[in-house]
Parts: sequence; structure tokens; C-alpha cells
Amino acid sequence: MSEREWRVYLAGEIHSDWRQRIEDGVREAGLPVAFTAPVTDHPASDDAGTGTLGEEPESFWRDHMGAGVNAIRTQTLIRAADVVVVRFGDKYRQWNAAFDAGFAAALGKPYVTLHDPELDHALKEVDRAAQGTARTPEQVVDVLRYAIEGKLP
Amino acid sequence: MSEREWRVYLAGEIHSDWRQRIEDGVREAGLPVAFTAPVTDHPASDDAGTGTLGEEPESFWRDHMGAGVNAIRTQTLIRAADVVVVRFGDKYRQWNAAFDAGFAAALGKPYVTLHDPELDHALKEVDRAAQGTARTPEQVVDVLRYAIEGKLP
Amino acid sequence: MSEREWRVYLAGEIHSDWRQRIEDGVREAGLPVAFTAPVTDHPASDDAGTGTLGEEPESFWRDHMGAGVNAIRTQTLIRAADVVVVRFGDKYRQWNAAFDAGFAAALGKPYVTLHDPELDHALKEVDRAAQGTARTPEQVVDVLRYAIEGKLP
Amino acid sequence: MSEREWRVYLAGEIHSDWRQRIEDGVREAGLPVAFTAPVTDHPASDDAGTGTLGEEPESFWRDHMGAGVNAIRTQTLIRAADVVVVRFGDKYRQWNAAFDAGFAAALGKPYVTLHDPELDHALKEVDRAAQGTARTPEQVVDVLRYAIEGKLP
Amino acid sequence: MSEREWRVYLAGEIHSDWRQRIEDGVREAGLPVAFTAPVTDHPASDDAGTGTLGEEPESFWRDHMGAGVNAIRTQTLIRAADVVVVRFGDKYRQWNAAFDAGFAAALGKPYVTLHDPELDHALKEVDRAAQGTARTPEQVVDVLRYAIEGKLP
Amino acid sequence: MSEREWRVYLAGEIHSDWRQRIEDGVREAGLPVAFTAPVTDHPASDDAGTGTLGEEPESFWRDHMGAGVNAIRTQTLIRAADVVVVRFGDKYRQWNAAFDAGFAAALGKPYVTLHDPELDHALKEVDRAAQGTARTPEQVVDVLRYAIEGKLP
Amino acid sequence: MSEREWRVYLAGEIHSDWRQRIEDGVREAGLPVAFTAPVTDHPASDDAGTGTLGEEPESFWRDHMGAGVNAIRTQTLIRAADVVVVRFGDKYRQWNAAFDAGFAAALGKPYVTLHDPELDHALKEVDRAAQGTARTPEQVVDVLRYAIEGKLP
Amino acid sequence: MSEREWRVYLAGEIHSDWRQRIEDGVREAGLPVAFTAPVTDHPASDDAGTGTLGEEPESFWRDHMGAGVNAIRTQTLIRAADVVVVRFGDKYRQWNAAFDAGFAAALGKPYVTLHDPELDHALKEVDRAAQGTARTPEQVVDVLRYAIEGKLP
Repeated sequence: MSEREWRVYLAGEIHSDWRQRIEDGVREAGLPVAFTAPVTDHPASDDAGTGTLGEEPESFWRDHMGAGVNAIRTQTLIRAADVVVVRFGDKYRQWNAAFDAGFAAALGKPYVTLHDPELDHALKEVDRAAQGTARTPEQVVDVLRYAIEGKLP
Repeated sequence: MSEREWRVYLAGEIHSDWRQRIEDGVREAGLPVAFTAPVTDHPASDDAGTGTLGEEPESFWRDHMGAGVNAIRTQTLIRAADVVVVRFGDKYRQWNAAFDAGFAAALGKPYVTLHDPELDHALKEVDRAAQGTARTPEQVVDVLRYAIEGKLP
Repeated sequence: MSEREWRVYLAGEIHSDWRQRIEDGVREAGLPVAFTAPVTDHPASDDAGTGTLGEEPESFWRDHMGAGVNAIRTQTLIRAADVVVVRFGDKYRQWNAAFDAGFAAALGKPYVTLHDPELDHALKEVDRAAQGTARTPEQVVDVLRYAIEGKLP
Repeated sequence: MSEREWRVYLAGEIHSDWRQRIEDGVREAGLPVAFTAPVTDHPASDDAGTGTLGEEPESFWRDHMGAGVNAIRTQTLIRAADVVVVRFGDKYRQWNAAFDAGFAAALGKPYVTLHDPELDHALKEVDRAAQGTARTPEQVVDVLRYAIEGKLP
Repeated sequence: MSEREWRVYLAGEIHSDWRQRIEDGVREAGLPVAFTAPVTDHPASDDAGTGTLGEEPESFWRDHMGAGVNAIRTQTLIRAADVVVVRFGDKYRQWNAAFDAGFAAALGKPYVTLHDPELDHALKEVDRAAQGTARTPEQVVDVLRYAIEGKLP
Repeated sequence: MSEREWRVYLAGEIHSDWRQRIEDGVREAGLPVAFTAPVTDHPASDDAGTGTLGEEPESFWRDHMGAGVNAIRTQTLIRAADVVVVRFGDKYRQWNAAFDAGFAAALGKPYVTLHDPELDHALKEVDRAAQGTARTPEQVVDVLRYAIEGKLP
Repeated sequence: MSEREWRVYLAGEIHSDWRQRIEDGVREAGLPVAFTAPVTDHPASDDAGTGTLGEEPESFWRDHMGAGVNAIRTQTLIRAADVVVVRFGDKYRQWNAAFDAGFAAALGKPYVTLHDPELDHALKEVDRAAQGTARTPEQVVDVLRYAIEGKLP
Repeated sequence: MSEREWRVYLAGEIHSDWRQRIEDGVREAGLPVAFTAPVTDHPASDDAGTGTLGEEPESFWRDHMGAGVNAIRTQTLIRAADVVVVRFGDKYRQWNAAFDAGFAAALGKPYVTLHDPELDHALKEVDRAAQGTARTPEQVVDVLRYAIEGKLP
């Protein structure tokens, strides 16, 4: 069997260390994974438009410009990914995470959700279109290990 | 010019009368529109799985079954639509609305968002991929009139 | 809301009356559904090639010719369907039913499986890619009623 | 002419040594092939869901979880493959093999079936959509040698 | 079962009455078929460019203009067809018939070839990608009757 | 042969009567064509955003809003069209006409350009991807008559 | 996070040094970008057809041949690109730039426009479908740095 | 500008040295091209089925088996190619060459034809969908040099 590099996009929440925990777990497991993600520096993400394309006094258009620049990154990387992980935290509305899940679903790209049981009912459509729902980053590592190497922890 | 029937899918919030107001406005304007929507009866929607495919004691799987049955309707109708309107209200997390927007975006299907300015920053990615953001159902009617008949109110 | 005709393809087992029961239930429920199906006359289906394109002494090629002619019907109708129902009975191997399910899945077309619990483990991949698993034709009618009219039985 | 690495996915039966025989034959022939396959460790495959995402007492949902995790692997690798080989053995129902064939067919991806003549009639639809039907792993090696290097054995 | 109108495109040879014979047979059989075809008036087809878009003295460009105008018709109708019939006669090279077959094949659209056995070897690639090879227009009628109504002659 | 209604989208210049001349010619010829077009009322088109979605003081964003609302109409109708006609006049830059041509080309949708010879060199890429270049609206009518009925004028 | 090479296609104006400035800026920033572009040698581009495929006295067909050969390059590279930058200068009509933008938009490929504010109104449709509008090559570098590395200047 | 390897598939005639001449010319020009092609050993190609999958007495099915095995190679390589060259010689009917051209056209893949002027009228549809028509292998080399390096000979 060939050693294939898997491309995994880590979408969603940017206020906890879940990406780091997945990357650490994958590195320890020695899995051939190339991770990608949205920009996780919140202030940079908010200034993505005005910080590159110039000033804009109106907040709606400032956000609009920023979201456009961010989409260059996110849509390119989601299209290029083999698997997407979509994390929902307990704060903020995180509609972009659900948007990314719908985007992946329409492309026929498998994704896994990662969130606490408290969010289950609200996320039922998003979870249904996923290939699985994990509760911890470590479970995501286990899913990736199985998908890539066929081994259980 | 031919009179073409436009298929418009009304996604999102199910706790206010915004769909009715759009349908009323479109009827008054005499526009050739066939509307579709998710099931807006909240209890029916929650029981979509167990009410059709049988009992299920676990809430996670009950939701899972229901979301599958709902997806037969929603994904079929979104794929069949010319235009999607995505409404975000001020209550609940409404991740399915954002999911539908991402689904439409990946299919290259034009959509319009409908929400209050308070939600602008949280919805910036969803608004950016839309063809426009409306604040009232009447504005959506105006957009449809323009798109279909080329007339401003 | 518009009255849309739904196209439902009934794939799989041809040795019981499940199609008739679904069609009867849908008619009683007054749902706007146009059903399609593979040829369910088993001898005709087996002779589809030699009965149209000429004699063939070798059984492998006779089957090959017949399967080609049948595929004109089945692939056209599956591509044209909104929803597919895939029935697995308790006899025969029914690999064509599973093939049709995989074909629908790759096209992003929603389908529902219909089979007894005894087959659950063997059909787990096929069920996973479905939007739901029904046990009786009446449950399929309930799913269609819900998907089309948003009503529970 | 360039030396291109071919990606070949080996779908289906997991209870005999056919994959090993194809890989051995391809290595002896010196063909540039990278093989992929589903997880062939049957117990691991059955525990793919509960072994990664947590306990589940109900067998239907246990299978459902497992099939979801397996699908991350199988659908990713089938989409990434140039050619698929689909093996049907003489035991079990192997509906997932037929599902994979239908999935490949709908994607326009060429596949070869591998099975005994006893299964010909039952597999006629699956064979018809294939580019060829082999009886032995060695014949599959011959097909790959021809497709890749243009040489007959 | 619903009565669905099937769209059948009749590609290829324009020097014999095969289209008329298929249409007559289908009408006698009472099948719901809407036929389309390329322009079969040879002189008109040759003048399709200069007769509409203006004079052109060079024969290469005259053909080029004509083929462009013909393609508006042929590609639109092939894309809109459910099934394509591709006829190869015993005269001329008929490369456009083979081109249409390749075009249909890449779109995943089922087609049937119609030609004498003398052409079998030369047409083997074109026949292989077809769902069947007929020898007479009447056999094509039989295939359509079976595909549409599930009945053998 | 069936009478099929052809959907023709008339893109480009909005300052001369070319659309009317094509529609008149098609009506005189009795062709089954349903025409669609962008909004050709220039002031309405410029106000498409602010006239429906609310005030906007900045001209860049006013244009941005208007172009979004216009795109709901144009992209929907181009996707729904069988054939596109793209007109370039002698005034203005008409980049949206070239944009529509590129959009149609990437979708594999046949289009015809309509412009004077003075623009030939500047439009060479746009003309190359077209199925033909007409100089007068009457020539476009002739092309449509040929494509639909197979008759030369 | 993995270091991924981004493929960026630089479309449009060929009479100023904007491409060089973007490439210089990207090299200084150390970004992993592989740039592609149309042929920017204007005389070579005009002779692309006759310089390779032979003489042609008529200017329309000379342009036609040249545009065909150029399209081999441009369409291949646009399809292969992650991101497209489309530059409009203040001279010439540059319809090919707008054509490329429409082509990219229909493929769902993100692009950025680059032009002076004087062109804003004429380019509103092209800008609307873009992910952003830059005024200077340095802003494009900033957008690429952000999209690739998540850093603001 | 990056050095990108171009994948060029050489379809069609297998009885003259045109492929070798193109490969020689490309090597001399130092172009980064990886060539692929169908199997050009005529006897091997005719035995592709029986030489790999077993005996078959009937010539129709022998050809059918062979064409299936050949299609694994040809369709995989055409899908993977950036550019296709389609050669028509003066002997044989070469319908597979026209089939490959139609296949490439439907995929939106650019191709160049290579043939003598005597075949122009018969090949007009195939030439029309091409990006250019060459008369000699050296012209094809010139086209590739231009497409890849932007230089005329």
C-alpha cells in the first residue's frame, strides 16, 4: 500500500487549542497529514480587507472586504482538502463554520464535526451530513489514524 | 421577453412571519414565483425521523434520523431553486441556515441574506458569498421584482 | 407554496409488492409523485438484450447485452429522479440495488433504503450514505409525505 | 513517453489473498502503481466507529458510526484513484463492493470486476458498467500491465 | 408509473431513411418520444455558415463557419437528450458521428450504435462505450420500447 | 421531429435596438424561442442595489450592490439558456458583455457574438470561443432559424 | 501547518510592469507562489496562429487562429490556478481580461481585480464577482501574503 | 514564471512516425512535456482483451473486450492531459480518433488536430471544436512551444 499524504482542513472555532491538539496527536501518531486552516489570528482576520486593500469607514463594507480576502484562503483550501474537520465551540455564533460544512457537503467532500453534546440539537443538520461527530480532538486523531492507516487506537 | 416561472427557496428562521410577508408581496406584485421552503412546523420538523421511520430513544439519533428526512426535502428543493433567500432571526443559533447558504454557494446558486444589522459582523462570511443583504422582507420582494421584471419599486 | 411534482425512482427487489404498496399509499395520500422503476418483469429483463438486439448463444454476453439495454432505462431514470428508494429483499444477492445506491450517492442524490433488520449489518455502508432506512413501504410513504408536504402521518 | 504513477483502488472482498497476489504480480512486473484499499482487518472495520468516536449500545447505530468513518477512507481513495478493481468472493453479500462499483461508475471512473463465473448472472449490471471482468488476480495484473505499459504478458 | 416523454437524439448518417424508419416504428408503438437530430439536408448543412453569417471564399473557413453554426444545434440537442442513437452508414467517413459518440460518452449519456457488422472492428471503441449495438432501425425501436415501457416486441 | 422551445439570452449592449430586431425577425420567422436578457433600462440597472436594498453613499459600494442584484438575474438566465448572443456596440467598454461570454464559455454553453468588423481584433479571444460572429441582428435570426429548423433564409 | 505552493494566474493588461511588481513583492515576502500568465509579448501574441500553423491572408481568420493557440495556454493555466488576478489598464478595451474573469467566475475560482477607480463603474459586474479589488500591485502582494500566510503587512 | 510540466496526449493514427517527430521536436526545444498515448502496437491493441482476460471466439466480443481494456488507458490519460493532439492519417477510418476528440471537447479540454487538407471537409466538425489544425508534426511542436514558453519558432 502506498503512503499518501492526506490534506485535512481544520474549520471553525479559533478561541481554543483544539487545532494544536489534533496536530500534536497526528504528529505523535506519525500520520502523513498536511493540515490547513483559516487564519486563526482574530484581529488579523477582522482586518483582512482593510489591512490589504485599503481603508473603509463603514463596518459593513469593512467586514465585506475582509470576508472576501479570507474566502480566497478558505475556499481554495477546502476545495483542495481530502477531509474537513468542523469545530463548534460554546461561544459566538460561528456561522462561518456551518457555512464551511454546507460548502463541503455540496462538493461531496467528507467532513467530521467536533463539538459538545450540548450543541447536538442545534447542529443536527450539520452533523447529519457529516461522516461522524467527535467530542474531543483526540477522537479526531483516532478517526484520521483509522482513515489513513486502518488502525484503531 | 418570455414569462418564466422563478423558483425561490426560503431558507432559515421559522419563528416569524417573514415568509408570509415575502409571499404576500410577490403576489401583490404579480410576479411569477414558485416558492419552496423547509418544513416550518417546528414540532413536526423535530419529529421528522421518529414520526416516519419509527421510535428511537436516544436524542442524538432521533435528531440524526429527523435531519436525514428533512434533508430529502431541503437539498432537493435547494438544488431545484433559481434563487435562495436565507433568513437569520435574532434567536437560536440557526446553523442550518448558514449550512444552506454554504451549500448554495458551492453549487454556484445565487442567494440573498435577510437579517438585522446587529448580526452583520457574525454573518460576514455568509453575506460576502451572497448577492445582497436585505433588512426587510419587503426589500426581498423588491429584489425579486427587479431580478424578474427589471423594475424598481 | 407551489405544488411541485416529485420524481421518485423505486430501485431494487422485483419479487414482492412493495412498489405497489408505496404507489397505493402515495395515491391515497394525494401526493404529487411521478414514480419510475426498472423493468420488474424478470423474464423480460433477462431477455432485454437478445429480445431487442438479436440472438447471442453465450450466457455471459447475453447478460451483458441485456444489462446494457436495461441501463439505458435505469441510469436515465435515476439521473432524472429527485429521490431514490432502494429495496433489499431477503432473497437473491441484489447487487444491482447496491450498485444503484452507489450511483445515486456519487451524484449527490438523496435515497432511502427499505429492508428488514436482518440485513442491517451487511448493508451498513449502503444505509450510511442514505438519508434514512425504512422497514415497511408505509414508512416510505410517510417519508415522502413529510418531504413533500411537511406533514407527519 | 512519461512514467506516470497509476493509482489503483482495490475494492471488495476482504477474506482471501487476492490483493496480495495483485500487488505481488505488479511488483514483479515493475509497474508504477500505488495501491489503496479499504481497511481489510474485519474486526477493526466493524469497530471503526466505536473504536474512535465512543461507545454505542445499539447495533444499528454502531454500524452506522463505523460505516461513516470507513467512508472517509473509501470515498476519498476512490475519488483519488485512476482505476478501481472490484472483487466479489463466494461468501457474504458484499453489497459494499457493488456500492463502490456504482459510485465509480457515476464518477466516470474505469473499473474492472474480479469474480468467478458462478456470479456472472447476479453481477450482470455491475459487470456491464465495468471495462472488463477478470477471473484471477493474475489477469488483473495483465490488464494493468497493458493499460500502463501497453504490453501483453 | 408516470408517462414521461423521452428525448432521443438521432446522430450520424444522413443519406438513408433510417431516421424515418425509427420514427415510424416509434409512432406505431405509441411511445412517448420527442426526436431531435442534426440538419439532414446535406447542401443546407454545408452552407450553414455562409448562408447565415456571410460570404467566405476559403473552403477551410467556409467549413469552419458552417460547423460552428451546426454545433449550436447539435451540442444543444445532445446535451438535452436522454438517449442518443449513432448511425454509421457504409459510405463517407462520418467522423462527426464518432465525435458525437465521444461527446455523449464524456457526458455520461447513454447511446446506442447502429451499423452493419462490416464496420464492427473499425468501430470497436465507439461500440464499447455504447449501451448496445443495433443492426436495423427496427432493433432501435425495440430497444426504445423496452427502455421506455419495459416490453419486448 | 419535436417542436422544442429554445431559450436564448441576449447579452451586452443596451443602447441600440438590436434586441428588438432579433425578436421581430424571430417572430416573423415563427421560431419557438423564449428570449431573456439583462435589464436594459440603464438608470434602473444603475439603481438596482440602492433601489431595492437601501441607500449607500459611496459610489463603489452602490455599484457593488447593484451589480449583485443584477447578477441574480443575469447568471440565472445565462445558466438557463440554450444559446447566448453577445452584442458589442461601438460605445462604452462593455466589459460585462465579455464577462458574460467567458461565463458562458466555461459552462460549455454555445454563444454567438454580434459586432462590427472594427472591433474584430480587440474581440479576437471572445470571438474564438464563440460558435460564430454575426454583423447584423438579421444574421443572428438566420443562425437561430438554421439551428432550430435547419433552414437557410 | 503545511507549506503549500499556490498557483496564481496573472490575467489582463500587458503594457505595464504590474506583473513584475507582484512577482518582486512576492519573492521579497518569501511566499510559495508559482505564477503563470498569458503570453505578454504583444507581437508574438498577435502572430500566435500564423507563426505556428501557417500563413493566413485574412485578418479575421489570422486573429481567429492566434486566439485559438493562445487559448490553449490561457484556459489550461486558468483551470490549473488557485487564484486569478485580473488587471485592467487605462488603454485598450481589454475584453479578454473580462472574458477571463467570467471564465474564472463560472468555474468557482476566486479572483482579484486590479485597476484604477476611474474604471470602477464600467467594471462593476467584474468587480462584484471578484473576492476583492486592488488599486496597486503591492496590494495584491498583501492579499496573497494574507491568503497564504495569514499575515498582514 | 514557474516551470510547469505539461501533459500532452497524442491520439489517433498509429501507422506513421508523427508521435516520434513531435517528441523529438519537443525534446530539441527543451520543453517540459510529459507525453502519453494509446497503445500504438496494432497487434497488441487488437489482442488487449483476449491477451489479458482470456479467450473469446466471437470477433465482436473479442473486439469488445479489447476496447474495454484499451479504454482504461485512453480515458484515464485523456482525463489527465492538459492538451490533446488528434492525428488523422490517410488510411483507415480512425473513428476512435474522432471519438477521442468528442470526448475531449465535452470535458472542455483543448485539443489540436493534425491532418492533410484533403480531409478538411470530412473533419470540419472535429476541427471546429479544436483550438487549431496543424498540417505537420513540426507545427504541433511550434504550437506547444508557444503555449508553454510563449515563443514563436
